[in-house]
Amino acid sequence: MRPLWAVLSDALTPEPRVRSVPHIWHWRDVRPRILRAGALVTAEEAERRVLMLVNPGLDGRPAATATLFAGIQLILPGEVARTHHHTPTAVRFIIEGEGGYTTVSGEKGPMRKGDYLTTPNWTWHDHGNEGAQPVMWLDGLDIPFVTNLDAIFYEEFGEERQPVVKSVNDSIRRWGSNLKPSWETPEGSYSPILNYRWETSRAALHGLRGDKGSPFDGIIMEYINPYNGGPTVPTMAAYLQLLRQGEHTHAHRHVASTVYHVAEGGGYSVVGGRRFDWEEGDTFVVPAWTWHEHAAEQGEAVLFSFSDRPILRAFGLDREEALAAGRQG
Amino acid sequence: MRPLWAVLSDALTPEPRVRSVPHIWHWRDVRPRILRAGALVTAEEAERRVLMLVNPGLDGRPAATATLFAGIQLILPGEVARTHHHTPTAVRFIIEGEGGYTTVSGEKGPMRKGDYLTTPNWTWHDHGNEGAQPVMWLDGLDIPFVTNLDAIFYEEFGEERQPVVKSVNDSIRRWGSNLKPSWETPEGSYSPILNYRWETSRAALHGLRGDKGSPFDGIIMEYINPYNGGPTVPTMAAYLQLLRQGEHTHAHRHVASTVYHVAEGGGYSVVGGRRFDWEEGDTFVVPAWTWHEHAAEQGEAVLFSFSDRPILRAFGLDREEALAAGRQG
Amino acid sequence: MRPLWAVLSDALTPEPRVRSVPHIWHWRDVRPRILRAGALVTAEEAERRVLMLVNPGLDGRPAATATLFAGIQLILPGEVARTHHHTPTAVRFIIEGEGGYTTVSGEKGPMRKGDYLTTPNWTWHDHGNEGAQPVMWLDGLDIPFVTNLDAIFYEEFGEERQPVVKSVNDSIRRWGSNLKPSWETPEGSYSPILNYRWETSRAALHGLRGDKGSPFDGIIMEYINPYNGGPTVPTMAAYLQLLRQGEHTHAHRHVASTVYHVAEGGGYSVVGGRRFDWEEGDTFVVPAWTWHEHAAEQGEAVLFSFSDRPILRAFGLDREEALAAGRQG
Amino acid sequence: MRPLWAVLSDALTPEPRVRSVPHIWHWRDVRPRILRAGALVTAEEAERRVLMLVNPGLDGRPAATATLFAGIQLILPGEVARTHHHTPTAVRFIIEGEGGYTTVSGEKGPMRKGDYLTTPNWTWHDHGNEGAQPVMWLDGLDIPFVTNLDAIFYEEFGEERQPVVKSVNDSIRRWGSNLKPSWETPEGSYSPILNYRWETSRAALHGLRGDKGSPFDGIIMEYINPYNGGPTVPTMAAYLQLLRQGEHTHAHRHVASTVYHVAEGGGYSVVGGRRFDWEEGDTFVVPAWTWHEHAAEQGEAVLFSFSDRPILRAFGLDREEALAAGRQG
Repeated sequence: MRPLWAVLSDALTPEPRVRSVPHIWHWRDVRPRILRAGALVTAEEAERRVLMLVNPGLDGRPAATATLFAGIQLILPGEVARTHHHTPTAVRFIIEGEGGYTTVSGEKGPMRKGDYLTTPNWTWHDHGNEGAQPVMWLDGLDIPFVTNLDAIFYEEFGEERQPVVKSVNDSIRRWGSNLKPSWETPEGSYSPILNYRWETSRAALHGLRGDKGSPFDGIIMEYINPYNGGPTVPTMAAYLQLLRQGEHTHAHRHVASTVYHVAEGGGYSVVGGRRFDWEEGDTFVVPAWTWHEHAAEQGEAVLFSFSDRPILRAFGLDREEALAAGRQG
Repeated sequence: MRPLWAVLSDALTPEPRVRSVPHIWHWRDVRPRILRAGALVTAEEAERRVLMLVNPGLDGRPAATATLFAGIQLILPGEVARTHHHTPTAVRFIIEGEGGYTTVSGEKGPMRKGDYLTTPNWTWHDHGNEGAQPVMWLDGLDIPFVTNLDAIFYEEFGEERQPVVKSVNDSIRRWGSNLKPSWETPEGSYSPILNYRWETSRAALHGLRGDKGSPFDGIIMEYINPYNGGPTVPTMAAYLQLLRQGEHTHAHRHVASTVYHVAEGGGYSVVGGRRFDWEEGDTFVVPAWTWHEHAAEQGEAVLFSFSDRPILRAFGLDREEALAAGRQG
Repeated sequence: MRPLWAVLSDALTPEPRVRSVPHIWHWRDVRPRILRAGALVTAEEAERRVLMLVNPGLDGRPAATATLFAGIQLILPGEVARTHHHTPTAVRFIIEGEGGYTTVSGEKGPMRKGDYLTTPNWTWHDHGNEGAQPVMWLDGLDIPFVTNLDAIFYEEFGEERQPVVKSVNDSIRRWGSNLKPSWETPEGSYSPILNYRWETSRAALHGLRGDKGSPFDGIIMEYINPYNGGPTVPTMAAYLQLLRQGEHTHAHRHVASTVYHVAEGGGYSVVGGRRFDWEEGDTFVVPAWTWHEHAAEQGEAVLFSFSDRPILRAFGLDREEALAAGRQG
Repeated sequence: MRPLWAVLSDALTPEPRVRSVPHIWHWRDVRPRILRAGALVTAEEAERRVLMLVNPGLDGRPAATATLFAGIQLILPGEVARTHHHTPTAVRFIIEGEGGYTTVSGEKGPMRKGDYLTTPNWTWHDHGNEGAQPVMWLDGLDIPFVTNLDAIFYEEFGEERQPVVKSVNDSIRRWGSNLKPSWETPEGSYSPILNYRWETSRAALHGLRGDKGSPFDGIIMEYINPYNGGPTVPTMAAYLQLLRQGEHTHAHRHVASTVYHVAEGGGYSVVGGRRFDWEEGDTFVVPAWTWHEHAAEQGEAVLFSFSDRPILRAFGLDREEALAAGRQG
């Protein structure tokens, strides 16, 4: 037993005391390191060969923000990352390579540059590379969130690859065209679509380029679960956003924390007063309640991002504020 | 005041006493008549030039089943069916013609053969034909249902055409690819998509042709509202179904009543013990709680249909029963 | 096939063309007739000894409004109205008598003056009278609505009384105090509470007498389903409203049609321009889209009512309008 | 950047690695200490005079489990704990004293022994004691959970007491009897009821004493939000449970962590293999995924508890397992 009053002003602060900090990981630095990791450890030894993007403010914990994990995963030609499942949910955005795949719940989904895939809570999954080049992608998971709930469970499947019982693109054929098969009902509260393909998503984004869009994010679209219209997985929202040439958005902040990845082009963001220049392949983080704005002054850019917004919204805890001055100093 | 006991067995029957009857309207009969109507009355005079498919069991009421209206609408080249709105909701399936369009809530949507469009409750809409040939489609409305609720409202816009304030395919670009624009929220409880295009829907249907599908309906898909995963409009569900060559489904019955339209191919259905042969363009009706089975023994067929299932489901009133014998004698 | 344009202005009217009319059934007329019915027919012969309150505008159909049935039921001492179930849902408001009961799904619920009970879709139910005096109540059902959907099913249980497997007041003990038993989940989409007791409901109503309340209805409360906060049954909303001495509400109209029953006191309502004076035991009807206002100028009054509002709301079809002049001429 | 494979088996464990431990705080120890605190610090100095029940496994963090805070609050006669609000939500269970009150959103609610009150996210609240004796209660908050989301906001009202704009028991009168006022809609996603009164709740619990109840918890009821049937606040579920004389429940475990408080009687629980004897006023904690069983072998007991179950359920993360052996060794 301890007195609350000694710590109350520390526990209940006027605004969140956010420990994670704005940070960027440049692909020019990340790529050689993850490839070097490929030489040092096999996929089998590693279980998952992932370099974690550890937030410098979080004392080495495997976390990019208070709730989100981010990492870069590599699968070399011929390798398999064996089948397991866990309660944390993963989202993945493919950075480089041809011939990669993820099998989730019996469906083998090809992974091509720009594709967005999900691996929901407790679904069996394994990855492989049937191509001739390394395959690399961004992994986003809610590990810190699930860990803080004392809700981590993990299990191995027992065989390297799970049986593939569905045909390629099965889920996109069932659910990808605003129709649904009437004779079946998806299980779970996550999107029945395994792979949101880059060409489709990118075309959708460019289709709205004539719109005004969001003052804070330009043309920004959220990947949705066609079975309920919500986010693709219950804990994380994923977005694709187009910054048009010369666009410089207004600054805002929200409680939801976000990991951004540069899918195309270059530009910069001002996050918490610091400028981060970015180009294709870079990953950066905007912590909770931190001012941020984006600029693509030299050419167009497309950003992928994922955030913990659905968690906050479930409990009325998200807030958003526009910067009165429009942009940070 | 009257005694219930004199009418109780009449009011509370063991099974529904359905007055609408199975019936088919052949396109070879319908087409010349609706074209003749085009010669007799202008679109302006008619407000809507529609031949109603009146169920013979319903005493001439404008109804195909107890809850659903069906009709065939014609717009001649250069004509406009002026802007109005009403509380009944319409679904439309395009049968023939090029150059037709419907404008709903400021979006002008092209109507091509096989397209499925919706005109929800109280949305302004006008139709036109900018092509060189007659444009004809199937109209499905919940007029009998809304009438029975004493909830009919109708209003004219005042101008022939409403202003078009959105670009062509605006809604499919916003909502058609399993992403949604983050900066806006659709109004209403209906699908934000105006036009479900035939080439997309047909491809989705054929994409599942390797599935077993439903024993009663073959490969059947429901058009869905991407904003909530439900039917495209609150009162009616719309489907597209593929009957593969040689397929003859099992018989079942359900409380939901259905209007079918032959989108492609030919075959027959046995409805309430009677065989109805059909070919492209035909429309037939399966009343509530009536056994029905479908056959495409000569070649493939695609059926479009709409039903009042969402109304029944909203109140726990739908039931489905499989015929023990498999098929009707 | 028939031309829509010949009937379009008849089918799609600017406002609903409501056939049911405002009407009142005075208890002083109803009571002797239902008692006389008790002398003419036994409960066994009648299945249910109910005098229907037939709306004069509806050509003798068993309906009080387009969607709602209302009737007065009598059970004499020692009688049993045998067990059956049907897809129409019933609500009941007890008018007179001691010793009546309804058994629903194995729970036997006492029926006392002012109690509100429900008998949802397809639940087995039987009634009886274990007292020494006639028991009479108002029955409200969605029979016209369910009939119009071709969804009537009816079945007899086979025994006069169903087994009573729950203790008296079982459901109110489980669900009546804003707590719920954690080890069970109610079936169905209707309230788990069988009997909303008069003393509780009346006390709640009087507890808010200091409020301003609704300008159109005074202190009006809706009976709710504690499992989901919605109406007690999916198709009908039921209300209790207090008109304080001297209160004369403003006129409004809405698409929802309503059957009112005077639970206590006297006053009058102006419905569709006609004044209806009422006193305890009277039942009157406000059809869809009809102006109505209530007055309790001599003393306090409590009105019970039920309406089809949940049906209209499910499809965005309810509308409400206040009379600009405040009250009808 | 750091290698995931070095920490993967640490991050993704087969079962949760729970750091909080089973623990009990006896009222005989707590009471003198909180009273001593009353002598050492004023309510004004303390902002809130609360002794935290700090879990020994959590390194001194203000937390009873990974997600839940528990504390004992004292208000002395005449004192006021001034008005503030914060994003963490509080639930309160009154232990001792007469004359205490909490004002939430303008409603002043009396606090009597056994009452359950809520103070949802961002609602203004102040406490006071208008009696002659100390008032003490158990505070439960989701502070650790909200802190882990970087979502703490806190603000002072500026005046000691907020204006009381509603009458005593306003919310229970509006919402406590399974009716709701039709002219208003509650704001927020929490229960509109401020105070769940002991006499009502206890009577409900005893009303089900004849039931079999839950094998793991006896007669256990959850306080519910009458507006939606869910828990009283979005993040925490609160329960009252009756252990009948001689009852010894089966052991189970679940991911949801729970803080228990003994409202009446005595007995013991076996938690994680350790026996904790308890009597009225004691508080004990069952961490996530920890076996627990309860026994009231000498007489009856009533336990109040609150848990983070709604958080886990929102994301499909709760699991429950029965101990095969029935009870722990």
